[in-house]
Amino acid sequence: MHPPSTLEELTSWMNADVGALAPSLEAFIRERARELEREGAILGLSGGIDSAVVAALCARAVGPEKTLALVMPDRDSRREHMKDALDFAGQLGIEAKLIDITPYLRKLRVYRLFFLHRFPLPKKIKAKLAHKAHAYFERKTGKTPFSAGILGAHDSRFDAYLKNCTAYYRIKHRLRMILLYLHAERGNRLVVGAANKTEYRIGFFVKHGIDDAADVMPLLGLYKTQVRELARYLNVPSRIVDKAPSPDIIPGITDEEAIGIPYEKLDLIVLALEKGWETPEVASVLKIDQETVNRVEELTERSAHMRKIYVPEI
Amino acid sequence: MHPPSTLEELTSWMNADVGALAPSLEAFIRERARELEREGAILGLSGGIDSAVVAALCARAVGPEKTLALVMPDRDSRREHMKDALDFAGQLGIEAKLIDITPYLRKLRVYRLFFLHRFPLPKKIKAKLAHKAHAYFERKTGKTPFSAGILGAHDSRFDAYLKNCTAYYRIKHRLRMILLYLHAERGNRLVVGAANKTEYRIGFFVKHGIDDAADVMPLLGLYKTQVRELARYLNVPSRIVDKAPSPDIIPGITDEEAIGIPYEKLDLIVLALEKGWETPEVASVLKIDQETVNRVEELTERSAHMRKIYVPEI
Repeated sequence: MHPPSTLEELTSWMNADVGALAPSLEAFIRERARELEREGAILGLSGGIDSAVVAALCARAVGPEKTLALVMPDRDSRREHMKDALDFAGQLGIEAKLIDITPYLRKLRVYRLFFLHRFPLPKKIKAKLAHKAHAYFERKTGKTPFSAGILGAHDSRFDAYLKNCTAYYRIKHRLRMILLYLHAERGNRLVVGAANKTEYRIGFFVKHGIDDAADVMPLLGLYKTQVRELARYLNVPSRIVDKAPSPDIIPGITDEEAIGIPYEKLDLIVLALEKGWETPEVASVLKIDQETVNRVEELTERSAHMRKIYVPEI
Repeated sequence: MHPPSTLEELTSWMNADVGALAPSLEAFIRERARELEREGAILGLSGGIDSAVVAALCARAVGPEKTLALVMPDRDSRREHMKDALDFAGQLGIEAKLIDITPYLRKLRVYRLFFLHRFPLPKKIKAKLAHKAHAYFERKTGKTPFSAGILGAHDSRFDAYLKNCTAYYRIKHRLRMILLYLHAERGNRLVVGAANKTEYRIGFFVKHGIDDAADVMPLLGLYKTQVRELARYLNVPSRIVDKAPSPDIIPGITDEEAIGIPYEKLDLIVLALEKGWETPEVASVLKIDQETVNRVEELTERSAHMRKIYVPEI
């Protein structure tokens, strides 16, 4: 199979009729809740686009009165994301519980793992410095801390930094997951996750974290740009749709910086790899250098272990 | 295919040559650690048989000096299990870190979910009362809290009790998982899980908990009685091999009580179901009533959601 011959053709093909999927995604959530005899749905609401779409789908699937959103910022989270999350929950008419996870992370002595938290600096300054440290790491190693976490750093100067940084951001999403399940089990609710196909395929998620461990994953078949289309269809506020996606777990770092490639291109590379299109052809149609395509392919392959648990053949 | 015609034949067939598997299980761990470029292995060591076998395999696979065991009791754990875990780590020559998770669970306000912790009673008395409450629940509902957690309780009198109890014990194993990953990532170690086939198939584990979420699961192809054989082969102390298996997360409750069927029979039922043997025939060979066989089949089917994450077809 060959790729469409222009970038525009590809993009419009990808985003055609995404809105039409909403009813079947809702039915999917409703059906699983019924089948597993759950009394409602629960989700983590971050203020980002994926979880907003999940919240909207849940509210339609099981009813707003049976949907519970946990908003779980920590000291690194941007206030505006939390505010967007709470506002959107209000708009949907679903219950939102605000749980600051900072005290739990403090108790777990996690903050000392991130070098900037050893200094008493204002949050804005830390975000700026984190940003600079991130760029410095990329300049020196040719990888972002995220991609080095999957591909390996192979630079002993950054070994301790990378290990601590990785442990630091990942425990946040895992702690969010266990809080979600704690509240899910107390109310016999279905845990609805917000992973999308793009992030999942390249390993841009925390293994066994809130974006990986759930009961159901309604968006896992959709690329990030398709989630954006769906968000527009579901009337997610433009504040949420249009802001730069960010994992919001290390101060100041957006998805695009963490991954090193914008989603518009990334989606199309992931699609091309999935379809088995010839990569030199893809690179030329997408107007992306071959090295970027290879990098995405490498991330996809090297993150395979995050999507499975190895079991020996006996 | 038909089952062997006697119980003895079945049991001896199941346990034949299990020890011979040890080298290939070790090679499996070593190979995954190499492939994922990990600098060592990490595991949770409870003092029970499964994690002891995993510890012994890791020590052989990557070397005792590169194996780290986390021993993570909480206030409900029996001291002797903790002691057995630490002793065995010493015997293997692996590093063991003792982390009492009680303060974290307290911070998460988890203990109030278990009704007995509302009263200032000695630990032994609580274990006795928990035991009685467990038996009472089973007498009244025809299910154990574990099986009701999978099959549904359908008894509104126990609804709040079951929800709180479920949320209570499950968060412990999830918290253990995230601590394991925290230490794994700080040292770039492979997370080696201890799930066995019997428990996994009937859903006797915590979804996304320490017995479910790992990097590799070397024992997942073995029935519980086979793990016991392997433990003997690996010189796991008889104190650990011979004690009654217990999840050690609710005071006083053993695996057998929680599941309601002893492992010797359970293993053979799970095997028979896996092989597709006719269940009336199995019941007669195993000298088990048909209802018990049906119950295991129901647990296996109804726990399917714990072994997967639902994704819609698009």
